[in-house]
Amino acid sequence: MQLIYQGKTKDVYQLDNNRILLKFKDDVTGENGVFDPGANTVGLTIDGAGKSGLKMTTYFFELLNSLQIPTHYVSADIDDVSMVVKNAQVLGKGLEVICRYKAVGSFYRRYATYCQEGQDLDRFVEVTIKDDERGDPVISQEALAMLNILSKEQYDELADLTRKICDIVKAELAKKGLELYDIKLEFGYDVSNNRLLLIDEISGGNMRVYKNGVYIAPLDLEKEFLS
Amino acid sequence: MQLIYQGKTKDVYQLDNNRILLKFKDDVTGENGVFDPGANTVGLTIDGAGKSGLKMTTYFFELLNSLQIPTHYVSADIDDVSMVVKNAQVLGKGLEVICRYKAVGSFYRRYATYCQEGQDLDRFVEVTIKDDERGDPVISQEALAMLNILSKEQYDELADLTRKICDIVKAELAKKGLELYDIKLEFGYDVSNNRLLLIDEISGGNMRVYKNGVYIAPLDLEKEFLS
Repeated sequence: MQLIYQGKTKDVYQLDNNRILLKFKDDVTGENGVFDPGANTVGLTIDGAGKSGLKMTTYFFELLNSLQIPTHYVSADIDDVSMVVKNAQVLGKGLEVICRYKAVGSFYRRYATYCQEGQDLDRFVEVTIKDDERGDPVISQEALAMLNILSKEQYDELADLTRKICDIVKAELAKKGLELYDIKLEFGYDVSNNRLLLIDEISGGNMRVYKNGVYIAPLDLEKEFLS
Repeated sequence: MQLIYQGKTKDVYQLDNNRILLKFKDDVTGENGVFDPGANTVGLTIDGAGKSGLKMTTYFFELLNSLQIPTHYVSADIDDVSMVVKNAQVLGKGLEVICRYKAVGSFYRRYATYCQEGQDLDRFVEVTIKDDERGDPVISQEALAMLNILSKEQYDELADLTRKICDIVKAELAKKGLELYDIKLEFGYDVSNNRLLLIDEISGGNMRVYKNGVYIAPLDLEKEFLS
């Protein structure tokens, strides 16, 4: 199998035309040696981080597949720390979709004039451009359409699917007394049939989760959630 | 008459319940002594800047009023460098509405991955929060609705009115061989009847204008346009 891309936290191999193997690494994003899922640089290596992310991802993707939610997930090999997925074309040159249940992080930093930190948001969806150099700027539905990145219809499908998935993840976490504040997803189009799919991963590194008002770091989250 | 607010480029006096007097100043925004309409600090004083802005504003507001476009403009006294306007309540705690015909400025800086500098945009409207401390962040229709700043219907009315006004300004400039790249407007609700009004000013300080590919600075624009 051929290595086709080395990401910050995963290596990507081509298996055949329709299948990709993702090898989860122990490198995590962060700055100054502190794990920060929102950071754009690999900050440190944590033994077991890759396997922890893969376990969470496998749990959620198998659940979503069983609910007929389209994801790229085919199978996982926890011991090999790898996941087989459908080949998908990312949106644009790479977009991220955020779903917010609480006004925290960059949302609060931008709009503090009009909200309290931590106030409830009703599944607020926004899209950001994966662009380390420009700090992953937010882009509106209108701008995505104007720049021919996503049509209005594609955007609506994306936002609806995002809310559906995130509500499922939120409900699963709630079963363990964990509260989802916000979460970041990636999507792509299945190269075999052009269908919109959830891609990448769903793990502690993609979400802000609290328990009784205390933030739960990504690796602790996996232990809390899967125990 | 009572001074009720000292802005960066205008002083605001209350005349009566329904009328306000705006006194245009020679202070202009900029940094390091260079006039920059996009800046949030008063950078310098230019003799005649207030009168120049008022002349342009009077021209456009009288034109818009004659076309039944709702503005706050009542009358102007060029020699006194002042303008009488209807009393209006700003949107939220102060929003700006940008209409873009070319991908330049902050639009290009954010979305350079997906556009060429200076490429045509089809009257792209976006709203920013007047918040010097946070660098006037862009806010989407969805966020404006989520934070109860503007309803979807209010946003649509605002965007439609913006495009209508900006197309008129663009066409007027074109008659003098001047090309509008982008423009920033402010709106408010008439306190007497809650109707949406164009407020503030329309002058060189609110727009990026080019002639034969060369940028025309605000005060030069007034001379070119009104000569």
